[in-house]
Amino acid sequence: MITIRRAERSDEDAIWEIFHAVVERGDTYAFPSDMSRRDALALWMAPTVHTYVACDETSIVGTYIIRANQPGRGSHVANAAFMVAPSAQGRGAGRRMGEHCLAEARRLGFTSMQFNFVVSTNESAVALWKKLGFDIIGTVPAAFNHPTRGLVDAYVMYRPL
Amino acid sequence: MITIRRAERSDEDAIWEIFHAVVERGDTYAFPSDMSRRDALALWMAPTVHTYVACDETSIVGTYIIRANQPGRGSHVANAAFMVAPSAQGRGAGRRMGEHCLAEARRLGFTSMQFNFVVSTNESAVALWKKLGFDIIGTVPAAFNHPTRGLVDAYVMYRPL
Repeated sequence: MITIRRAERSDEDAIWEIFHAVVERGDTYAFPSDMSRRDALALWMAPTVHTYVACDETSIVGTYIIRANQPGRGSHVANAAFMVAPSAQGRGAGRRMGEHCLAEARRLGFTSMQFNFVVSTNESAVALWKKLGFDIIGTVPAAFNHPTRGLVDAYVMYRPL
Repeated sequence: MITIRRAERSDEDAIWEIFHAVVERGDTYAFPSDMSRRDALALWMAPTVHTYVACDETSIVGTYIIRANQPGRGSHVANAAFMVAPSAQGRGAGRRMGEHCLAEARRLGFTSMQFNFVVSTNESAVALWKKLGFDIIGTVPAAFNHPTRGLVDAYVMYRPL
């Protein structure tokens, strides 16, 4: 059973552990693999960012953020990012967070959601976002330097809310 | 005759004047119209950003930046942004900066360039980028709240270097 709630300062250790594990693998996000805890939390827990955690019975298994994809005259379009602990992959936390995120983004007043940089080889993420109503609206050629596959495309994905 | 050079701290007044005038018009950038000088210069003159100014015989008539569009594993793709002083529109400063920018981005080692948010109604910019080899690779529906036209699309534009 996975529940989702707003992140608190006391979740920082768990969030950093997931963030670091995901970024260190280097196959889904462009963040530098040596990104510091301080820089990671400054980004993930920024005052302009809505941060959530997904919990099972015993621990935090995932985290996601919602924020405006652009400031000012573009701030009605949401952006989001998701991370699942490697040990919790395949147990539905990503899907639960995705559904929760769409409802939260609507509640926060956003009218659409855009992902700027979905790594094309991240097939489970691409499939999940398609299931949740996102379309690929752009492909950036060779935009991501994958640790084993080399330069691969990144997708821009979008859906109205 | 327009010349282009790296920006210096002493150019901050001129850069802010152009930035503020362009953002106040509100028809090309999503930045909030009340963005402060401090926030504007923190963004435009950030340590991770390459900042340039275009000068005519007497004054600074435009400014542009080059930066990585993503960190880490996406940092080979450049992003750029351009502003021309309203009083200097139509005198070729945009085109000169665009050409200079492509050469500089190559020199800095970037292998392609991506614009994330070209307002579709900014026809002179769209036409200029097409002339300089960019393609529209994605359209984000209703992503920009134009001050007179309401919600209009934004383009993702791209070219290899």
